[in-house]
Amino acid sequence: MLRFAAVLLEIWLLPLPAMAARYPSYGTLQTTKSDGVLNVVINNTYSTINLFDMHVQSDLANLIETLQANDTDVRVVVFSKSVLPLYDTGFPDMLFPVALLWNITQLPQATIAVVEGRTRGIGNEFLMSCDMRFASTSPLRGAMYLSRLIGRGLTFEYVLSSADVDARTAARVGWVNAAFDTSRELHQYVQALAARIALFPAAGIVATKTGINAVTRPSRDVLVQDAQNVIAALVPTPPVQDAFKRFLQVTRNQSIGPMELNYGAEVRRLFN
Amino acid sequence: MLRFAAVLLEIWLLPLPAMAARYPSYGTLQTTKSDGVLNVVINNTYSTINLFDMHVQSDLANLIETLQANDTDVRVVVFSKSVLPLYDTGFPDMLFPVALLWNITQLPQATIAVVEGRTRGIGNEFLMSCDMRFASTSPLRGAMYLSRLIGRGLTFEYVLSSADVDARTAARVGWVNAAFDTSRELHQYVQALAARIALFPAAGIVATKTGINAVTRPSRDVLVQDAQNVIAALVPTPPVQDAFKRFLQVTRNQSIGPMELNYGAEVRRLFN
Amino acid sequence: MLRFAAVLLEIWLLPLPAMAARYPSYGTLQTTKSDGVLNVVINNTYSTINLFDMHVQSDLANLIETLQANDTDVRVVVFSKSVLPLYDTGFPDMLFPVALLWNITQLPQATIAVVEGRTRGIGNEFLMSCDMRFASTSPLRGAMYLSRLIGRGLTFEYVLSSADVDARTAARVGWVNAAFDTSRELHQYVQALAARIALFPAAGIVATKTGINAVTRPSRDVLVQDAQNVIAALVPTPPVQDAFKRFLQVTRNQSIGPMELNYGAEVRRLFN
Repeated sequence: MLRFAAVLLEIWLLPLPAMAARYPSYGTLQTTKSDGVLNVVINNTYSTINLFDMHVQSDLANLIETLQANDTDVRVVVFSKSVLPLYDTGFPDMLFPVALLWNITQLPQATIAVVEGRTRGIGNEFLMSCDMRFASTSPLRGAMYLSRLIGRGLTFEYVLSSADVDARTAARVGWVNAAFDTSRELHQYVQALAARIALFPAAGIVATKTGINAVTRPSRDVLVQDAQNVIAALVPTPPVQDAFKRFLQVTRNQSIGPMELNYGAEVRRLFN
Repeated sequence: MLRFAAVLLEIWLLPLPAMAARYPSYGTLQTTKSDGVLNVVINNTYSTINLFDMHVQSDLANLIETLQANDTDVRVVVFSKSVLPLYDTGFPDMLFPVALLWNITQLPQATIAVVEGRTRGIGNEFLMSCDMRFASTSPLRGAMYLSRLIGRGLTFEYVLSSADVDARTAARVGWVNAAFDTSRELHQYVQALAARIALFPAAGIVATKTGINAVTRPSRDVLVQDAQNVIAALVPTPPVQDAFKRFLQVTRNQSIGPMELNYGAEVRRLFN
Repeated sequence: MLRFAAVLLEIWLLPLPAMAARYPSYGTLQTTKSDGVLNVVINNTYSTINLFDMHVQSDLANLIETLQANDTDVRVVVFSKSVLPLYDTGFPDMLFPVALLWNITQLPQATIAVVEGRTRGIGNEFLMSCDMRFASTSPLRGAMYLSRLIGRGLTFEYVLSSADVDARTAARVGWVNAAFDTSRELHQYVQALAARIALFPAAGIVATKTGINAVTRPSRDVLVQDAQNVIAALVPTPPVQDAFKRFLQVTRNQSIGPMELNYGAEVRRLFN
């Protein structure tokens, strides 16, 4: 069992150069492909805290375009990363990430997010846009799309209080599919699941996703209107701009520090 | 910890007269305000069982109008009560409570319901209309809006069987956010949560609520049509009118007694 | 307690001939009626594995037509069966089962499914169409309607991996209302629940179901379009037809064997 896991992790961490032609290692994405499963490690070398910023988002948009036109060769995509924190406050187009996340839900492949480390804001919305989520010991902080998974009551509590939620609690309430004590167990479970799903024909995966999306996904119009009404209307306002400025000061331009490592407790420093 | 809780409870129970100008103690609502949090104790002196009747609903409608026009001074509202039982069978306008509950979901403030004691019928719909719910040892009995929180299957079971559900079970299935063993722990948790949420700017709370409502709340049309199709069509029918009459007899006009204290077990007395 | 359960089971298993005039024992359905509760045992004598095939579906359609025109005499319907496995691959009209399942959600009676044994594919969709579900030790395999009960994340995991899920896990995530260790406890709980619901007037049951359906059920159009877009578009394709052919070979025309008893593990034999 342990040996098997070790082999899996090794495969996991080694990009296969032969595949680079079709699924290249972008600046921020390292890809490896094997038996219908594409593993994508998000590693933002432009940021000390692996920010889900315009570099990651642009690279993801390119990858998704390739996957969307996929010839059924890849049937499962596993996204992983050590940390995926806050939204890049300097991103120019508010609707770009909304379109990106919608396009992820439209992929013909099954998508799995592996969470190891802090995942907040747009980083968490990215998790929500994947079909499934698995975590080891990670603090998660929700944003609006969370409500599709855990319901109104808990979403209001977690988002309004801007609390960091541990992976075990997240699994109990349905935020992630399951939580694991160790990184090894996490990757072993996810790789076995991905291999299992990849057994099935691509057409079956597409049909299943279409059916589940038809019942559980808000319409694209709702999401775009939501982004326009809420985010676009909120972000330019003085209190939010003030909080952003203070945030950049306190975090020394989004680098490692108390605010990044313990956002839940430190956030009050932004408002007094 | 215990000392802190004791102080909290003291604050909790004392209305601040200085605030009466803007948030008056209505006949059935006692209000206290502190650091962006408005605590509202529902205490219906017209009823021996704290009925959620026309007095409470009218006072709430006035309070909500004030809150709706709020100048961002109040950012969190905590509603509490010892018991909040059945619907007032004599209420003249079926659509008034529907509009009232909808308006609560529209408030710019975060709303938290604290449940201590029996909560049933329209009393439970009021809980559902708040953003979050926390309970200590309380029997709850569901009504239709419950399905938004706990799903079709359990809602059918609880509502069709008219069962009293304990707070611990309610927390496990998502009916309330969390259940606590003691009143002290309950209030301590809620006051800390309210204080945390009140840290954030009012605009952020509004935007978060707008976003979550967009995805999780049925449209106003669905709710109004539902009330017209179901409640308004049902209430005037002979079997419901007969059950109401028998209910008033058995409860001695909705006073304390076996039916009120143990509705789940006693309800069969209405039908044979 | 045990004696009471024994009596219940006895009633359960004996069809009452006197009732046959209105609720006949169809070829595949054995019915017994008592105090407003109709018990329906699905026993497909045309199939060695109790297939949810055209015989069962036709008999159910007839029963549902009778129940739909019910004179309020029957207020609760309990469906049970030992096993209810895969979809009949030879069924001529893809939209017939969609209409059948929709009509079950429209019944004026409360409907309860009792699960004992393997329940997969259309058999699970039948479970989903009932108001409530209770299980003892049974492997369940989900299909698309599952998402209404357990959310996007877990539905994707279970359906895409085509995994058999045990009843205990199913209860934890909301797939079934509750799981029981023994058949006796299961039937005892369900019969007590059915008797409790049958206490209430038929008009109240109808109104409750209408209200919950209004909020939690996808529209008929969504379901029909879903069936047309997904199932009707998928089933005639070569990979699905190939998988069906292989499935019939491997299962020796859907009879008892390793594939039937352990579908989750054996399914890979269909694809390599």
